[in-house]
Amino acid sequence: METNFTDALTAFQNALGQENVNTDNSLLKEYQTATFDTKNSVLAIVRPNNTKEVQQCLKIANQFNIPIYPISTGLNTGYGSRVPTVDQCVVLEMRRMNRIIDFDENLAYITLEPGVTQQQLYDYLQEKKSKLWMDATGSFKDHSIIGNIAERGFGHTPYGDHFSNVAGMEVVLPQGDCIHTGFGRFSNAQAAEVYRWGVGPYFDGIFTQSNLGIITRLTVWLMPAPKYFQSFYFSVDSHKQLEKVIDLLRPLRLDGTINSAMHIANDYKVLGAIQLYPWQQANNKTPLDKEVLEKLGKSWDFSVWNGSGALYGTKEEVALARKKIKKQLRGSVKKLRFLDDKLLKVAELLQKPYYWVTGVNLPEMLKILKPIFNMTKGIPTDAMLASTYWRKKDNIANMVNPERDKCGLMWCAPIAPTSGKHAMKLWGIIESVFDQYDFEPAVTITLLTERAMDCVIAIQYDRSIEGEDKRAQACHDKLLKKLTDVGYYPYRLGVQSMSGLPEPEEAYTKFISLVKASLDPIGVLSPGRYLKNK
Amino acid sequence: METNFTDALTAFQNALGQENVNTDNSLLKEYQTATFDTKNSVLAIVRPNNTKEVQQCLKIANQFNIPIYPISTGLNTGYGSRVPTVDQCVVLEMRRMNRIIDFDENLAYITLEPGVTQQQLYDYLQEKKSKLWMDATGSFKDHSIIGNIAERGFGHTPYGDHFSNVAGMEVVLPQGDCIHTGFGRFSNAQAAEVYRWGVGPYFDGIFTQSNLGIITRLTVWLMPAPKYFQSFYFSVDSHKQLEKVIDLLRPLRLDGTINSAMHIANDYKVLGAIQLYPWQQANNKTPLDKEVLEKLGKSWDFSVWNGSGALYGTKEEVALARKKIKKQLRGSVKKLRFLDDKLLKVAELLQKPYYWVTGVNLPEMLKILKPIFNMTKGIPTDAMLASTYWRKKDNIANMVNPERDKCGLMWCAPIAPTSGKHAMKLWGIIESVFDQYDFEPAVTITLLTERAMDCVIAIQYDRSIEGEDKRAQACHDKLLKKLTDVGYYPYRLGVQSMSGLPEPEEAYTKFISLVKASLDPIGVLSPGRYLKNK
Repeated sequence: METNFTDALTAFQNALGQENVNTDNSLLKEYQTATFDTKNSVLAIVRPNNTKEVQQCLKIANQFNIPIYPISTGLNTGYGSRVPTVDQCVVLEMRRMNRIIDFDENLAYITLEPGVTQQQLYDYLQEKKSKLWMDATGSFKDHSIIGNIAERGFGHTPYGDHFSNVAGMEVVLPQGDCIHTGFGRFSNAQAAEVYRWGVGPYFDGIFTQSNLGIITRLTVWLMPAPKYFQSFYFSVDSHKQLEKVIDLLRPLRLDGTINSAMHIANDYKVLGAIQLYPWQQANNKTPLDKEVLEKLGKSWDFSVWNGSGALYGTKEEVALARKKIKKQLRGSVKKLRFLDDKLLKVAELLQKPYYWVTGVNLPEMLKILKPIFNMTKGIPTDAMLASTYWRKKDNIANMVNPERDKCGLMWCAPIAPTSGKHAMKLWGIIESVFDQYDFEPAVTITLLTERAMDCVIAIQYDRSIEGEDKRAQACHDKLLKKLTDVGYYPYRLGVQSMSGLPEPEEAYTKFISLVKASLDPIGVLSPGRYLKNK
Repeated sequence: METNFTDALTAFQNALGQENVNTDNSLLKEYQTATFDTKNSVLAIVRPNNTKEVQQCLKIANQFNIPIYPISTGLNTGYGSRVPTVDQCVVLEMRRMNRIIDFDENLAYITLEPGVTQQQLYDYLQEKKSKLWMDATGSFKDHSIIGNIAERGFGHTPYGDHFSNVAGMEVVLPQGDCIHTGFGRFSNAQAAEVYRWGVGPYFDGIFTQSNLGIITRLTVWLMPAPKYFQSFYFSVDSHKQLEKVIDLLRPLRLDGTINSAMHIANDYKVLGAIQLYPWQQANNKTPLDKEVLEKLGKSWDFSVWNGSGALYGTKEEVALARKKIKKQLRGSVKKLRFLDDKLLKVAELLQKPYYWVTGVNLPEMLKILKPIFNMTKGIPTDAMLASTYWRKKDNIANMVNPERDKCGLMWCAPIAPTSGKHAMKLWGIIESVFDQYDFEPAVTITLLTERAMDCVIAIQYDRSIEGEDKRAQACHDKLLKKLTDVGYYPYRLGVQSMSGLPEPEEAYTKFISLVKASLDPIGVLSPGRYLKNK
């Protein structure tokens, strides 16, 4: 087998057209840049326009033994952005493949390609005057729907566990073959879009968080817009209270009273969503002093932990759920508030008088509240972009490109059974590690499913400051080590932590190596991504 | 590689103890007998007691090149019972592995082995005074929970799509290695039982409807018992009306008003659940005359199509759902009735007077209604056993062993998008085929998920009558052919129809062959089961 990059490049150009094969140095640099330090260089960026061209790319990769690293739109911010897991890859970007293939209002599904973004899907549904809602993830408007699903990302509505609400993948395998999963392997199948298991082994899962294939098409299920919608908010003043609240919420999540992913954000997290680092109040010192944080909490009206969730249904159904939540949380939280479209409009009208009377900065608060409120209705937002600039002092005029602007962001998101006891253990580990490294632990605990919670921890810093990359990485690694040492494993990995988990049982390593080798004998597809190459 | 059965037998005996390796002819014959004609012989039955022994069995199988066919409790009735997919297998029965490993009332899960039956799990929950419900499948009390999940079977509660409600498999691979999926591959994982995806590729699906591994342990999620429960029933007089009703029900299933698998059974299906073939009224003729059917429908109080479903929640929540269902179905169905525990008790008390007044045979009807009512509450039943004796005239004193008693039963269960149009197409195909073969089409249309319905068709006959096996098989094959010709594929296959589907796309066949070969190089595990051996 030859490894000849020049010949490979010619082959890519012949297959995709010269304009879709890019080796421009400044562009390569962009694709080598994440929100944390990475070393891997990119050889070229290739941009296929359709599945056939993806297949051709993989055949070329196999022919010339060039590793291929597929991305959808490349907004995997905080997990590595567009940077490959190994050095000297060709990045295959599917931004051009942005077709909406099929849409069924009655059966509530849409079939799309990896280039379709959150905003594009939202606009499409608006344009069609559809009565269906998509689920939006907390990432950006230009985030790929399929990219997020492939990483098993999540959102805010009852369809929030994204991979639970898809069917019928089209997948290009590492050697260039194209398959359709489920019933879709039969060309005349009627139910490929509505029934995910198909007949025979169910394979979809092996193409998520993996390097066993490239998803080039997928059907996403959509949610019927509820007749009525209400979000709710509460807060607690201490970690001890959080412990109790999580145990109170678990039965409501289990019995479906709350049937969507609800989030409990700590003070740092809320502050970071509202404003940048308060340099002035903090006398230019980091990490943020707890007294300053508390003061800001009072002026912004947030507490140590701040819950938000949403109720979907008819007005009567929502009223019943509201009653149950009120009864369950009574006395255990402060300021349990419910908000609907009508009340939000009133708040917008009254924001100035509210400020005069209460001193709480409602206008500013609404700037962040409204996008979050909308997100629980499946409306994508870029409002979270600004929070990646948390510790930045420069480049904050136009906060749209965290990678370019040297924002530092690393996620670590361990899963635990939904219980107060586990929340306390997690928080104990987080606090001890962050104290050591002097970052602010911005944390959200998401009650992701009926039984499991995802504790999403952000390490935020300024990459322009010498040594910070290293310190942040050390903080991340220590955190991951301490968490996994006691059995809390992340639901997803960043490119810098693909080898950061302890060795699993030996038989499992052997098993995945066998499967990988059978589909990708020379290992050209995303080497090192989730599956280690042996 | 040697194929020496005598030496293999000695090895099995050394591994499991002599008493757990059986080659007794009369027993082998039982294991070679299904509810339809099968030709494959069984070499021996081996009964491991734990995962280690399952591993040993597979190592022996590989050493001596003996195909192994695993079953849990072997009640795959109508799909092949305990009969292997190829000739000359050793059946590996996991009945002895019936341990309940772990149970968590708060997080609502239970971890169990393949030998645990529906009844055993139900009794366990009762004994623990648990406030959790299991989901029961319409099969028998002794049916294995894991066996049903591995075939992606379904039940009646909101947890009815069984494979959607499991996590953390322990799997023995074809060459004898044992792996744990999801987070379970890390021995200290905290969330393996509550979060199914784990981190990295999600593999669980490839061990369902497959021959890629033996599930030896699994965590099943349980449902919090609702505060209140009500089932509902309706009927329609014509196929045309069914078309409309399905389109009316779809939005209720989609928006969660009905959040469990609901069933619509045709007249033949209901009659078969109530009584055996009405030989006397039919003057001993088959197939059943439509006029006789209609008369029986009047006296038993069923119609052409008969729906049943259930509502779970608080009393107020159920009332809201009931209101929506009433409003939606008003004028389109007849006799929409709701039933709860209280009303059922009253009916039991009043059954005789009811009979005197209405002439409807309530006492007999309750015999079948009550088990169905209970099943929607997760209580397993053997009430469906009798229906497998539909066309039998002899051996009907003690209807507990359809295989022994030569009952003929074959299922064919195609999936379609939930819509009236598809229901009509399915019914058209079913009717035309059954008319040709003179069997009664006993059919249930199950609104299995939000978007997909499963049309479960039974071919029922008497295996003691010469030629009937052949005719039933021809009917099944014609049905499957006509259904798949227009794109309706079954959700599951019987042992006699593993090769009955058309060829899928070539790349798919290549793909599964590669995966199978990587895990089972000499093909010892369930050859021909779902995955064809190449």
